[in-house]
Amino acid sequence: MPKSAAYIAIDWGTTNRRIFRMTADGDVLDTVRDDRGILAVRRDEYGREIDSIRSRHGALPIIAAGMVGSTRGWIDIPYISAPADAAALAGALAGAPAERVSIVPGIAFQDAHRADVMRGEEVQVFGAIESGQAPADALFCQPGTHNKWIATHGARIVEFATVLTGELFALLKQHGILAGMLDGTVEDGRAFREGLARGAGATDLTVALFEVRAAVLLEKLAADDAAAFASGLLIGADIGSRGDLAGRCVHLLATGSLATLYASAIEWRGGTSVAIDSHAAFAAGIHKIWKLADD
Amino acid sequence: MPKSAAYIAIDWGTTNRRIFRMTADGDVLDTVRDDRGILAVRRDEYGREIDSIRSRHGALPIIAAGMVGSTRGWIDIPYISAPADAAALAGALAGAPAERVSIVPGIAFQDAHRADVMRGEEVQVFGAIESGQAPADALFCQPGTHNKWIATHGARIVEFATVLTGELFALLKQHGILAGMLDGTVEDGRAFREGLARGAGATDLTVALFEVRAAVLLEKLAADDAAAFASGLLIGADIGSRGDLAGRCVHLLATGSLATLYASAIEWRGGTSVAIDSHAAFAAGIHKIWKLADD
Repeated sequence: MPKSAAYIAIDWGTTNRRIFRMTADGDVLDTVRDDRGILAVRRDEYGREIDSIRSRHGALPIIAAGMVGSTRGWIDIPYISAPADAAALAGALAGAPAERVSIVPGIAFQDAHRADVMRGEEVQVFGAIESGQAPADALFCQPGTHNKWIATHGARIVEFATVLTGELFALLKQHGILAGMLDGTVEDGRAFREGLARGAGATDLTVALFEVRAAVLLEKLAADDAAAFASGLLIGADIGSRGDLAGRCVHLLATGSLATLYASAIEWRGGTSVAIDSHAAFAAGIHKIWKLADD
Repeated sequence: MPKSAAYIAIDWGTTNRRIFRMTADGDVLDTVRDDRGILAVRRDEYGREIDSIRSRHGALPIIAAGMVGSTRGWIDIPYISAPADAAALAGALAGAPAERVSIVPGIAFQDAHRADVMRGEEVQVFGAIESGQAPADALFCQPGTHNKWIATHGARIVEFATVLTGELFALLKQHGILAGMLDGTVEDGRAFREGLARGAGATDLTVALFEVRAAVLLEKLAADDAAAFASGLLIGADIGSRGDLAGRCVHLLATGSLATLYASAIEWRGGTSVAIDSHAAFAAGIHKIWKLADD
C-alpha cells in the first residue's frame, strides 16, 4: 500500500516557495517549487493561497517556515533567541490566521557587538544535523542573496552572521558606475582568485570595488574578467569576515556555481567544505519540528 | 572699464556642469550651473551644446574638464600617469571635435597593488594649491557619489584612491533589503558615531550592513536612526581605509552636510580638516592649466 500524506510543509521564502507533501514518518512524497514567494503575495491573499495549496495537494495540516512569518510576509512571528535548538522552535510554533496552519518562528542573535536575524535557514540546519549530513557541532554556510554563516554546538544554533554578498553584486551589476561591466561569466579562475586575494580581510572593500572600473579602463583587467574579479572581491570579503576557517570543515548549503565558488574560496582560506542537500535537509528539519510540536 | 571675458571654462561632470566666464587674468566674471552633465547629452549632441554655450556666453575659446573627456562623454581622452602636475595636464590637453575647444585629460594611478582613475578632481586640487588654499604637500578628500582621497607632494598628484561610499549608500537606500529603512535624516550624532566605530577598519563591512536591518527589527536601533548609522558605517569604512589620518590635516573639497559628516569622521580618527572652496579651486586650477598651455 502506498504511503499517504499526513501534512504539507512549505519552505516559503522571499522570491520562491517549495511545497513538500510529507508522510507521518517524514518521507517526502513529492515537492513542487513555484515563484509565489512573499514578494508575489499580498497580505490579504494568503488565505486564498492556502486554499489553493490544499485543493492541489490535499486537505491537510500545513507547517510553513521562512519569510512568510516576517513583517514582510503573512504575519509577523516573534523571533526566538539563540542559542536555540529544534525543540525551542517547535515550542514557539505560531498559528497563522487560517485553520490548521502553523508557522515556524525565526531566530535572533545578539551579543555586545552585533545583532542578526534569520527565518527559514534554521530549519535546514537542524535537518542537516538530524539527517546525519552534518555533526551536532558544525559551521554552515548558506550562500544566496544574503549569505548566512551559522555555527551550531550540541545541535543548537549558537551564533550566526548574515552577509550582503549576493545582493551587493546584483546592485552593482544593475546600477551605478560598474553597471555594464559585470555581465561576464563568473567562474573559478584567475580573475576570481585575484578578487578573493584583494577582498579577503580588506579594510578598504569600497575602494577595491572602484578598482574594478579603473583596472578595466587601464587594461589591467580584461572586460570579460571584471565580473569574476568583482565576485571574488565580494566573496573574498565574505569568507574573510570569518577568521576561523583554517582547518575547519564548512557544511555548504548551496548548489550550482555558487557552491563551486564558495567551496573554492573556503579551500583557499585553508578550510574544507562538504555539500549538503538542502531540500533533504529542509524536509528532515521540518519533520523534526513537526514531530516535536506534536508530542 | 569692466574686464572682458577671454575664455570659457567648463567643469563638465556626470550629472551636472558648471560654466565659468573667465578673464585673461583668471578672474571669474560669472558662473552658471545646470544639469546638462554627460548623462543628459548624447555623443552627437556635443557640437550643438558648444554652439548653445557660445551663443549665451560669448564666441570664445573653451576649455573643459571632467567626465566629458571619458568613454561615457564626448571623446575619450587618454589619462596621463601619476605623479602628475598641472604642467603635465596642460601639455596633454586634447582638441575636441569642435573649433577652439580643448579638453583636460584625466589622471591614472597604478602601483603593484592597485589602479585608479580620476577626471575633473585634479583641476580642483591644483587650483586649491595654486590659490593658496592648500600647501603643495597635502591630502585632499572630495566626497560625493565617489569619494576621492588625493595626496600631493610638491604640487604633484602622487597617489589617490576612489571610494564607492555615496553610490553604495544610494543603492542600498533605493534597492534591496535595506530599502525603506534608510529614509531618515543623516546627521552627526550618536547613531552616526556608532556607525563610524563599527565600519572603520572593519574586515566585515558586508556583515555590518545587514546588521542595520537586524538591529531595527530587534529594536536595538531606532528606525529613524538607521540611515545615520548606515551612513556612519560607510563613511567609517571610507575614512578607515586610510591609516594615515591621525595628526594630519585633510583638505576637504565639499560643502553642506557631507562636509560636516566627513569633517566629523576625520576628527574622530584623530585628524583635522580644512574646508576648501571647490568653485574657486576649479577656477584657479583651470586658469593655471590654460595659461601653461598658452605659453
